[in-house]
Order: sequence, then structure tokens, then C-alpha cells
Amino acid sequence: MSLLALTMGEPAGIGGDIALRAWADRAANGTPPFVMIDDAGRLRKLAGRLGLDVAVREVSSPAEAEAAFAAALPVLHQPLAVAVEPGRPDPANVPMVKAAIERAVALAQAGEVAGLVTNPIHKHVMYQGGFAFPGHTEFLAALLDRPGLREVMMLACPQLRVVPVTIHLGLAEAIRTLTRAHIVEIGRITAQALEVDFAIPRPRLAVAGLNPHAGEGGSMGREDEDMVGPAVADLRALGIDAFGPLPSDTLFHARARQCYDAALCMYHDQALIPIKTIDFDGGVNVTLGLPVVRTSPDHGTAFDLAGTGRAKPDSLVAALRMAAAIAVNRTRRHG
Amino acid sequence: MSLLALTMGEPAGIGGDIALRAWADRAANGTPPFVMIDDAGRLRKLAGRLGLDVAVREVSSPAEAEAAFAAALPVLHQPLAVAVEPGRPDPANVPMVKAAIERAVALAQAGEVAGLVTNPIHKHVMYQGGFAFPGHTEFLAALLDRPGLREVMMLACPQLRVVPVTIHLGLAEAIRTLTRAHIVEIGRITAQALEVDFAIPRPRLAVAGLNPHAGEGGSMGREDEDMVGPAVADLRALGIDAFGPLPSDTLFHARARQCYDAALCMYHDQALIPIKTIDFDGGVNVTLGLPVVRTSPDHGTAFDLAGTGRAKPDSLVAALRMAAAIAVNRTRRHG
Repeated sequence: MSLLALTMGEPAGIGGDIALRAWADRAANGTPPFVMIDDAGRLRKLAGRLGLDVAVREVSSPAEAEAAFAAALPVLHQPLAVAVEPGRPDPANVPMVKAAIERAVALAQAGEVAGLVTNPIHKHVMYQGGFAFPGHTEFLAALLDRPGLREVMMLACPQLRVVPVTIHLGLAEAIRTLTRAHIVEIGRITAQALEVDFAIPRPRLAVAGLNPHAGEGGSMGREDEDMVGPAVADLRALGIDAFGPLPSDTLFHARARQCYDAALCMYHDQALIPIKTIDFDGGVNVTLGLPVVRTSPDHGTAFDLAGTGRAKPDSLVAALRMAAAIAVNRTRRHG
Repeated sequence: MSLLALTMGEPAGIGGDIALRAWADRAANGTPPFVMIDDAGRLRKLAGRLGLDVAVREVSSPAEAEAAFAAALPVLHQPLAVAVEPGRPDPANVPMVKAAIERAVALAQAGEVAGLVTNPIHKHVMYQGGFAFPGHTEFLAALLDRPGLREVMMLACPQLRVVPVTIHLGLAEAIRTLTRAHIVEIGRITAQALEVDFAIPRPRLAVAGLNPHAGEGGSMGREDEDMVGPAVADLRALGIDAFGPLPSDTLFHARARQCYDAALCMYHDQALIPIKTIDFDGGVNVTLGLPVVRTSPDHGTAFDLAGTGRAKPDSLVAALRMAAAIAVNRTRRHG
């Protein structure tokens, strides 16, 4: 079974647009088979608006979806509460957005799909609709009954993989909360995921320094000497081929990237500046360390593009392909 | 007069190697005429070691140098105290490294050269040799009798110009020392340099936010609301086309770069990660706001490459070309 589940995400965003285009271009893009969990009627209407020749077919099971995929976009119907206009979100639909994620997770846990790909949700709209989690990852952690789950986010494109140790924190707070143990934990999960999910036998983990020039021996900030360096030593003691701390400005050009399989970064923009500079449209967000395979496109709901035909499906297609590849690697390993 | 002065820099580093190659490839690279301030004997010896067919000619004045440049690499002889082996710096030569900078500045101030390009020095060696300044820029400020001079460093490559507001500070300290007034001052000097030195009539200045997503309305750090945003407003009130704060991860890909002439960044790696990711070999360091034109290659002394023939002259050639272009723009403007 190689089918993936794709959630609707925020229905006023570009999730539907890019899913329809990913299906329409499936032959050219090598889009792996997927079933959408969405409102079938709204997808038909959206296809018409976008002038896309996509047959939307309601199915009742993943098996039926897999058989249908070559000829039609299969949909496990999740009716919306109110009709939605592209770009105009309505919090009344939040329970359905949530239900689509729940269903995708349940299918993945039951082994009925190989993994899930989540379309972008809109934090503010979700809160208005009563969603109580900071984001997708925390909700997934609750659904998977792993309340203490660390958010380990990898961003990947063909040229680069990065994992920020701290993520959605102000920069000063990110520095304050960074610890040696935290770096080690994220590094360990990353190395394991590279080995299992990306089938890299002995992954090389480049660890970026926090400070300019990685602190230049402590003369520009002590953290790299006192915290990042010892964390690298801990990782090496665990048998992981980690090295650093390395100056982050010289870590991401083409030659430097040949020396590692992923870069462990200390804060959000240290990881996201290089990958979005290199590949703005095709990056994939992968959640590491989950019992189910989960990827998502590396962009938001883009309300201004929804329904216009200008949303690019590149990141979604890459997310579907990466989820399929990870699922295959996990199956090969675990039989 | 279009001649530039090129300092020796640390003589055990790659300064001589790249200068010889820049001269040897002058036709192919469009290297503008320059005179080196260096030890003529050591350059001849180095050319021999590198197998480069470069005629090194001692000259006694810039005018003589300009006439000689087509046929020979002109050198204003600055004898070293002790012979130097590539990769093995000797603090005994520090007074000569310093004298070369002094002479270049004096020539530029006297209008005998159009500007100066400084080869890299090595901070640690300079300190050992009794040099009392943190770096090139502070020394230049003293020589130019501008003790309060702000270090305004622009890094430029054909695709991108960036100016970090804070530079060689640990990241936590950089955040602590950042002020609205400081951002405005650096922004003002940058906008003026873009107009005068780069001949951009109404320069557009993109201002990067400090925090992820530029703070997302204050939910991830308050600095972008409380400090960066007001600094942008101040710059606009001065008639400068500044805008931001913008999320720094989405600021540096090819489409985004079309929207501005320079990006003002809040810390070292926010500026240096994107430019070194895009163009690792050809970036140029330009000191803005000086009464004389000054550029330098965007790399260090690279002791491991000195004398091997593997040092690339790209950044030096780009620095020479940029200094020449800035000198022309200043002359055009001021007549």
C-alpha cells in the first residue's frame, strides 16, 4: 500500500488549488497516489473555477482511492459546515479542518495509508474556531498520545536539509532557552531519522554555531564553547557523526553542503534563511520522530493566491514524493 | 586618474597569491589598474613559486605605476623586516603591514589613487605585533581622523547587497545593543552610499526583522514592533525608501531580491548567511561612509592556501572592480 492521505487544510487557502494541480500534473511530476480528505463538492467547484480538467471522485476507502487515482482525484468526503470562498476563511469550518487531520492520522495509524501530508492551516482562524493547539505538530502529538513530543521540524530540498533546534520563539528567548541537552535530543532524533527515513547509513550532522564565526573561541559569545561544543561531543559519544560548532555563514554554499547530510541550526532563521534562499518554492517540511510519516508543503495558506490559479504546487508535490519515499524506507527497514 | 592602491595585507596569507593572479588574468577579468604596496622581492619569489609569468616592477609614484600596469605589476616597495614563508606569519612584519595601509590611505587622501583595496590581515598576528586596533576599519577611522566612525560594512555580490547593523558581537549581545537610533544611522549611511557610490537614484532599503516571521505581531519577540518598525518610520521620515521589518527567511530568494537595492540586517549571520550561500567566492566587502573609497575581498588570510596556487582571486578582482566603479561614481557626482 503506497497511498498517502492529504488533508484539506484551511479550505479558504491554496490547499485545494495545489492538490488539484498536483493531481492534474501527476504524470509529469511523478506525483505519488494520494486520497484527499476534503469536501468533494467544493473541490469540483474549485476545479471549475480554475479551469482544471480534474475528475473528483468520492470514495469510501483507501483501497478504492488507490484504484481510482489514475483516472480521478479520489476524495474521502468531509463536508464543510458552510460554503467557502477562496481567500475568505470562516471559523465555522474549523471542526472539519480538524476532523480531516484526525481521520488522516487514524488511517495512518491503522496502516490504511502509508503516511499523511497536511495542507497548511491558518493559526489565527483555527484559534477563532476553538482549536486549542499551537499548531499541527502539537495536535498530532496529542492524537498520537505522545504529549511530551518534541517538535522536530526538518526542512528539506534537493540541495539541503536543515533542522532548527529552537523554532517559533523570539530570538532573545530562543538563545535563553537553548540547552546542551536540547541540542543533543534534537540531534539524536535527526540522526536517527536520516538513517531510517532517508536511508543514509552513517549520517553526517553539521552543527551550526550560535554566534558569528561560531564565537571565535569565546570572544564573540560563550555559548558555542560552553553549550554547542559539549553537545557535539555528547552526540559523538552516542556514536553519531556530528561535528561543529561551525560558523553558519560559511556552512550553506554548494561546496560546504557536500560535507553533511543535515545541518542542525540553533534558531529559526539560521535554518530557514539558507533553505528559502536556495529553493523558495520546492522546500518540504518533515516532522521527525513521529510513529507515522508526516510531511507538509513549506508555505502557508496564501489567501491572496487562493482561487487565482497562481499558486504553485511544487512544494506539495515534493512533500507527497518525500512522504512516499520515507514510507518505502521505513517499510524496507522494518519489513 | 583611475589607479587603485592594493595593500599587502598579512604577507604569509594569500594576499600576494591573489594579487599576482588578478594581474596575470587582467585582460580576461577586466581587472582595473592597481599598484601594490608590498615587498617587491617577496612578490617576485612568490610568482616563481606559483609558476606565474608576472613581471614585478618597482615604481616610485602612482603615475609611474599607472603607465607600467599594462606590462608589469607595479609595486611601491615596502620592504619586510624578515623573509616570510607562505602560511607562517611573523609578528616582526606587522609594522610593515601597518605601513602599507597608512601609505595607501595617504595616497587616497592626496588624490594620487582613486581608492584603496585592502588585502586581508590576521587579527591575532597583528595583536602580537603590537597593532592596537580591533580591525582594518577602526585603524582607517583613526588614520582619517574620524574616531567616532561607525563601522558600516556592506557585503555585495552581483545578486545581493547586505549591511549588518551589528557585526562582530555575540548574538545575545548584538540583540542587547541594538537600538532604534543605531538602525536609523546605519540605514541612513547605507541609503546615501547606494545613491552616491552605486549611482542608484532612489535606493530601496529592505529592513529585515530581528525575530522569526519579523515577530509575528509581537508574539515572537517585541523588538520588531518596538524598535525596528519605528526605525523604518524614522528612515521614511528622512525621505528614504525603507520598508519593513520583513521576515528574513523569505527576503533573499531570487524574486524577493528584485524588490530592493540593499537589505539592512540586524545581526552578522542574518546578512552573511544569504550572501555567502549565494556567492561564496565573489563577494566584496565595502566600507560605507568613508571619505576615501575602500573595498576588500570578503575572505581571510587563508594560511592553508597561501603559496599553493589554489587561492581564488575572484573576490579580490571583484573588490578592485567595485572600488573602481565607486570612484567613477563619486567623481561623476562631485565633478
